[in-house]
Amino acid sequence: MKHLLSTADLSRTEAIDLLDTAEEMSLVSTQEVKKLPVLRGLTVVNLFFEDSTRTRISFEAAAKRLSADVITFSAKGSSVSKGESLQDTAQTLSAMGADGVVIRHSGSGAPHRLATSGWIDAPVVNAGDGTHEHPTQALLDAFTLRRVLAGLPASGPADGARGLGLDGAVVGIVGDILHSRVARSNVHLLTTLGARVVLIAPPTLLPIGADSWDCDIAYDLDEAIAEHSFDALMMLRVQQERMQQAFFPTAREYARRWGLTDLRVRALPSHCAIMHPGPMNRGFEIGAAAADSPRAVVLDQVANGVSVRMSVLYRLLTGQSAATGGREGQS
Amino acid sequence: MKHLLSTADLSRTEAIDLLDTAEEMSLVSTQEVKKLPVLRGLTVVNLFFEDSTRTRISFEAAAKRLSADVITFSAKGSSVSKGESLQDTAQTLSAMGADGVVIRHSGSGAPHRLATSGWIDAPVVNAGDGTHEHPTQALLDAFTLRRVLAGLPASGPADGARGLGLDGAVVGIVGDILHSRVARSNVHLLTTLGARVVLIAPPTLLPIGADSWDCDIAYDLDEAIAEHSFDALMMLRVQQERMQQAFFPTAREYARRWGLTDLRVRALPSHCAIMHPGPMNRGFEIGAAAADSPRAVVLDQVANGVSVRMSVLYRLLTGQSAATGGREGQS
Amino acid sequence: MKHLLSTADLSRTEAIDLLDTAEEMSLVSTQEVKKLPVLRGLTVVNLFFEDSTRTRISFEAAAKRLSADVITFSAKGSSVSKGESLQDTAQTLSAMGADGVVIRHSGSGAPHRLATSGWIDAPVVNAGDGTHEHPTQALLDAFTLRRVLAGLPASGPADGARGLGLDGAVVGIVGDILHSRVARSNVHLLTTLGARVVLIAPPTLLPIGADSWDCDIAYDLDEAIAEHSFDALMMLRVQQERMQQAFFPTAREYARRWGLTDLRVRALPSHCAIMHPGPMNRGFEIGAAAADSPRAVVLDQVANGVSVRMSVLYRLLTGQSAATGGREGQS
Repeated sequence: MKHLLSTADLSRTEAIDLLDTAEEMSLVSTQEVKKLPVLRGLTVVNLFFEDSTRTRISFEAAAKRLSADVITFSAKGSSVSKGESLQDTAQTLSAMGADGVVIRHSGSGAPHRLATSGWIDAPVVNAGDGTHEHPTQALLDAFTLRRVLAGLPASGPADGARGLGLDGAVVGIVGDILHSRVARSNVHLLTTLGARVVLIAPPTLLPIGADSWDCDIAYDLDEAIAEHSFDALMMLRVQQERMQQAFFPTAREYARRWGLTDLRVRALPSHCAIMHPGPMNRGFEIGAAAADSPRAVVLDQVANGVSVRMSVLYRLLTGQSAATGGREGQS
Repeated sequence: MKHLLSTADLSRTEAIDLLDTAEEMSLVSTQEVKKLPVLRGLTVVNLFFEDSTRTRISFEAAAKRLSADVITFSAKGSSVSKGESLQDTAQTLSAMGADGVVIRHSGSGAPHRLATSGWIDAPVVNAGDGTHEHPTQALLDAFTLRRVLAGLPASGPADGARGLGLDGAVVGIVGDILHSRVARSNVHLLTTLGARVVLIAPPTLLPIGADSWDCDIAYDLDEAIAEHSFDALMMLRVQQERMQQAFFPTAREYARRWGLTDLRVRALPSHCAIMHPGPMNRGFEIGAAAADSPRAVVLDQVANGVSVRMSVLYRLLTGQSAATGGREGQS
Repeated sequence: MKHLLSTADLSRTEAIDLLDTAEEMSLVSTQEVKKLPVLRGLTVVNLFFEDSTRTRISFEAAAKRLSADVITFSAKGSSVSKGESLQDTAQTLSAMGADGVVIRHSGSGAPHRLATSGWIDAPVVNAGDGTHEHPTQALLDAFTLRRVLAGLPASGPADGARGLGLDGAVVGIVGDILHSRVARSNVHLLTTLGARVVLIAPPTLLPIGADSWDCDIAYDLDEAIAEHSFDALMMLRVQQERMQQAFFPTAREYARRWGLTDLRVRALPSHCAIMHPGPMNRGFEIGAAAADSPRAVVLDQVANGVSVRMSVLYRLLTGQSAATGGREGQS
């Protein structure tokens, strides 16, 4: 494993190994000095062509907790044409000695281009590209879900989830699947780990070809809740700017038919976890009862994001993982 | 002391203890390695909803000198509505493991809301909220003033001010009191430390209810200088955009009647310190003779700002202070 | 040597000493922990009044590799008038304890003003001022050129260039000399080191007085290539916004007459290095064959930039260099 571009590239063993290493990382926050010296002297470059304070800060915190130096390159609003800029920027960072590059880009496929172009030697982590993938988000979702399924605290130090997959779990992903890199990355990863995924969306917000994905599809949230015994429901964030577009239901219709209203929370199995990548649009894709429910694990997802990103950076920059027991191992 | 939101919350003992710890911190700059390892492994988040490079850099330097990691969250220009954004941002930072949050916000009361909302566990430092408070500015003013009153160098390492208050000192605060968080924080702190404060301003630039504050009020700067034997005069910065507003005197009238002109400098007691929170509008609220006078301690205030912020971060993140002699002590 | 403002201030000995120290620094990247503890506890402030992500990141990487803390002050778009802002900012940074200041400014002479004003004690490094100078760019060019002339790898660890000048080398600098701080800094430095410089440009893009500089001038690139046996050709970047201006040739004419076309690459001596400060405008001042040629050392220049900036920061902040063998030496 040289880069992390897509969850589709992860085998079950690799995915479980990353989650197990993230379990190790979640213990670091309990130590007096909350840092590991494992990436000391290495430089992680946060290459953000698109704004995302939450994701940037999570990666920054993860890298610093591993004692790496972090340099942020905020390329948003650059006047250089995109293709040139990516090549030039990548080659420049490589020449300056970047040991790892975390890239966020509005263009689907930009991280893949960066990793396979030969412009740069360093490992590349996809921190979200267009409507394509957001693999660390899927990993933190899987990490959180694994904890919940094992009856463990959803975040913080815990013991007992290591080695497990998500076999037999049923997970609903609700909303604008069409534009969601979170959904795409989760479909791959959750099924790889043995879960069954049900996509629930208006027909106009499902990508063409979704019916060939390895998951079920439903158009009606109430029917889906009645039919499946969900272990978790992931509510996708709706981008406000989409709502003006012709293929989008009206805001009112969306909230009424695909929002997680109070009524629907009561219809869910009592053990069903409520997930959301944040930030939530309360009263729209998610109601107050759902957002504030003890079953909501939204902040646990954020907390686990740091552990998962520590795991990914550690794996890619050192070649080590929990499975290799600290011994050197190139993938 | 869990947070630092307002100087009104500080007892005399707590205030002197913070100043004494800042005296310890001012010695760090004389060491070969100008860092203390006391916050190693901890993360301070600079949460700036409002631009303020000076204050942000001062806190950043203070945190780094204590070996903390610093993550800057510049939320200015965020499109999210303010209320939601604060909650969401706070909970996100808390979940990511922030050990301390420094917040600057255009809304008066935002730091208080952050600290008391339960959204976050970490200590909160108010780095300026609307027209309300700016407690670390008041602390650095008090620190500087205490040095001056004791006949010590206004900044840098010095010995002899520890344990002292500001008893008997007379301090004038001149200018736009109405919109000044610096004035508000100073009135509380200086009087707590035993000084007498005289506010000097045009009637339209005094807040309603100021006559109930624990200080004197004057409308004429020349009369006030004649009447009081000032130990220090704090000239407030005038925001250029205020000058267009109806309640504001014309720029010319303001400079003539409330500016610290060369003539007025000569009328001051020879020991009177000239203070300003910076940056100065030369020729407007302060003339060249005053700004460049040996009695001006404006840059000492800046230097002391780092020591005072080190003291505050150290106190809040470790529960320790000069008074506890390095022993653990939760407040 | 207290500051680095202009390459015209460097003696041959000082310049070679800086390059030799940079050779030492280039070895750091081969170590397991790619950091030297030499600036631990010191703070370098990046004071960027003008955007330049590449230069800022290069200095940031250099400072961090020497274990300094880095604080970035991005003053672009500040509403304060420039003169005031520089004084106020400088005094503020000085008071906060900056140990070194790297300044980028659109105004020619701003770093000089900063260094000689008395506003600040710390060493000042000019990271590009207006159309005036960019000394670390010239140093990295000289470093790269020295490697190439000695038959060594253009970047990375190598042995054998120490102590050498550029005696006898012939270097062409091509393009918009008028607005190029890179050209100006290189003319001084390359001639100090013994090289002969040929400026090649349209007459309207040569500064008035260039004929008194210590170099040759040519107006026709093909004739210059025929006449001189170049060891290196530096193609200057053309600023797109210049092309609309009356004194500028049309884009088409510029590319045809002063661009490094494929045909011209073939006319160059086979050992001639192709240099460019980046980012390149492919197809304009440089063609694809030149940009992708094995003789192009553009990325080596970027890599050497970090070593050269480490050398400069080390020299200015510690007073030491390769020549002093680690012993204290104030200049």
